[in-house]
Amino acid sequence: MIFVGERINGGFKDIQRAIKDKDKSIIQHWAEVQTEAGASYVDVNIGAASNKVDDFIWMIETVQETVETPISIDSNKPTFVEKAIKACKHPPIINSTTADKEKLDQIIPLAVEHNASLIGLCMDKKGAPQDVNRRIELGAAIFSEAIEKGLSEDKIFLDPVTMPLKFLQEQARNLIEAIHQFTLFSSPPPHIIVGLSNISSKAKEMGLINRVFLVMCIEAGLDAAICDVADEELVNSAITAEIILNKHIYSDSFLKAYHTTSSSQGI
Amino acid sequence: MIFVGERINGGFKDIQRAIKDKDKSIIQHWAEVQTEAGASYVDVNIGAASNKVDDFIWMIETVQETVETPISIDSNKPTFVEKAIKACKHPPIINSTTADKEKLDQIIPLAVEHNASLIGLCMDKKGAPQDVNRRIELGAAIFSEAIEKGLSEDKIFLDPVTMPLKFLQEQARNLIEAIHQFTLFSSPPPHIIVGLSNISSKAKEMGLINRVFLVMCIEAGLDAAICDVADEELVNSAITAEIILNKHIYSDSFLKAYHTTSSSQGI
Repeated sequence: MIFVGERINGGFKDIQRAIKDKDKSIIQHWAEVQTEAGASYVDVNIGAASNKVDDFIWMIETVQETVETPISIDSNKPTFVEKAIKACKHPPIINSTTADKEKLDQIIPLAVEHNASLIGLCMDKKGAPQDVNRRIELGAAIFSEAIEKGLSEDKIFLDPVTMPLKFLQEQARNLIEAIHQFTLFSSPPPHIIVGLSNISSKAKEMGLINRVFLVMCIEAGLDAAICDVADEELVNSAITAEIILNKHIYSDSFLKAYHTTSSSQGI
Repeated sequence: MIFVGERINGGFKDIQRAIKDKDKSIIQHWAEVQTEAGASYVDVNIGAASNKVDDFIWMIETVQETVETPISIDSNKPTFVEKAIKACKHPPIINSTTADKEKLDQIIPLAVEHNASLIGLCMDKKGAPQDVNRRIELGAAIFSEAIEKGLSEDKIFLDPVTMPLKFLQEQARNLIEAIHQFTLFSSPPPHIIVGLSNISSKAKEMGLINRVFLVMCIEAGLDAAICDVADEELVNSAITAEIILNKHIYSDSFLKAYHTTSSSQGI
C-alpha cells in the first residue's frame, strides 16, 4: 500500500501559522510523524496560507531537512509544480493534473523529465464526474496521454475523484466500480489512488467511514491513498485488506511486520 | 444485511453445560442478546454436546419461548433437520446442505415444503474447494438444483466456504472472486453468505480480520453472514459498507437508525 500523508496542508491552522511565522518545528513534526507511521510520500500543500512560490519551496525544503520520504507536490499551479520539482531531493509525486489537454501537455513532460510520478484526477473543465463512464473516459484519456508522452505505468496514479458520502451517496459506488475498470487498463495496471478524507466530509463517524471505504476500494483494486496515515486503525485495516488479498505473507505479527518495514523503506 | 447469530453452539462451554443441565437461561440469554443486536436468524447448533435429536429440539423450543427471531437449523444430519423444521414457529433457514446429489435430493424438498431458506455450502464428498472455479461449479450445481426443485432465488443462500487466513491465505481471495461470480447467477442474484469466524481461526487480530474480510465480501456482493452479531464494531462496519453501496439512505445517525429498525424487524 502506498500512503501519501495528507497532514502538511495550509488548510490546517497549525500549518498555516507555521508558514506565516516560518516555524520549521511544526512542519518537521508532521513530516516525522507521518514517515514513522508508514507514509511513502509526504504531501505538501500550501492551501490559502500564502500565494508565494518561495513559501511553498520553503515548506518542501523544511520537510527534506528532517526526513528522506519523497514529497507529494500538492498544487494545481503549474508554475509552483515546476519550481517545486527542482527542489525535490528524491523523485516526487505530482498531486495532481486534471484530464484537460493543456494541463496534461504541461505536467506530463515535467514528470517525465524529473522521473516523477503523477496523480491524474478524473475531472476536467466541465466539472467532476457524475457516473462510472465519465470516470473511465477521463481516466483512459489521462492514462493514454501519459503513456504516449513517455511516462511508465508504474508512475501513473489514477484518482477517480472521491465525493462526500453525505451529499452524493451514489457516487461512492460509482467510484468503486471505476476502480474495478481502471485495473483493466493495462497489465500490470496503473496505480489507483483516492483522496480518502473527502468521503467522510461533514459526516459523523468519519473514522469508520474512511476505514470501511478504504477497505472496499482496496478490494476493488486500489493500491494507494492520500489520507491521515497517523490513524492507526485506518492503516491497520488497509494492511489487513492487503493480507486478505495475499499481497503480503500472513504471520501472526503481520501488523508489526508492516510497521517495522514501512517506516524504514515504505512498502 | 442478513445476520445469522452464531452463539448458540454446543462448541461453547456455556451452551454445552446448558444442554447437559437443561438450563434454559443461558440459551435464552444469547437468543435475546443476538436478537437485540440485529440477528435475522438465531443459529442453533448442538455440536458434540449431545447426539439426541430431542436435545436439539429442546434448544430450538427454548429459543422460541423468548424471541420471535427465526431459527437457523445448524446440523448436517438430515434426520435432525427433518424433525427440527417441524418445531420451528417461523420459516427457518437450513444451515446447510453440501452440493452432493443425494443430500440435495433430501434437503431441498424439505425446504420447499416448509417454506424454509437454505444455505448451500460449495463443497462435496471430494472435499473443500481449492480454487475459484470449483466454488462456482458447486455453487451453480446447488443453485440450479434448488431452482429446479421449486425453491425461489430469495430462499437460496450460497456459501463459498471460508477457510482460515492463517493456514490457507490464498483461499480468501478465491472466495471473494467466487462471490463476484455468484452475483451473476441470476437477476436478482441469490443471497450469498459466509461463516465468518473461520477466516480468523487461530489468528491474532481476530476482530480486525473478521471486520475487514466481511467488508471486502460485502463489496464483492455478499449480503449475509453467520457471525458474532454481538460484535458491535463488526456490525457497524457491515452497515457502513452497505451505506457506501447505497443500499440504505445515509443520515448522520445511520448506525442508530439501523439498530433501531433491525432489532424490531431485521433489515
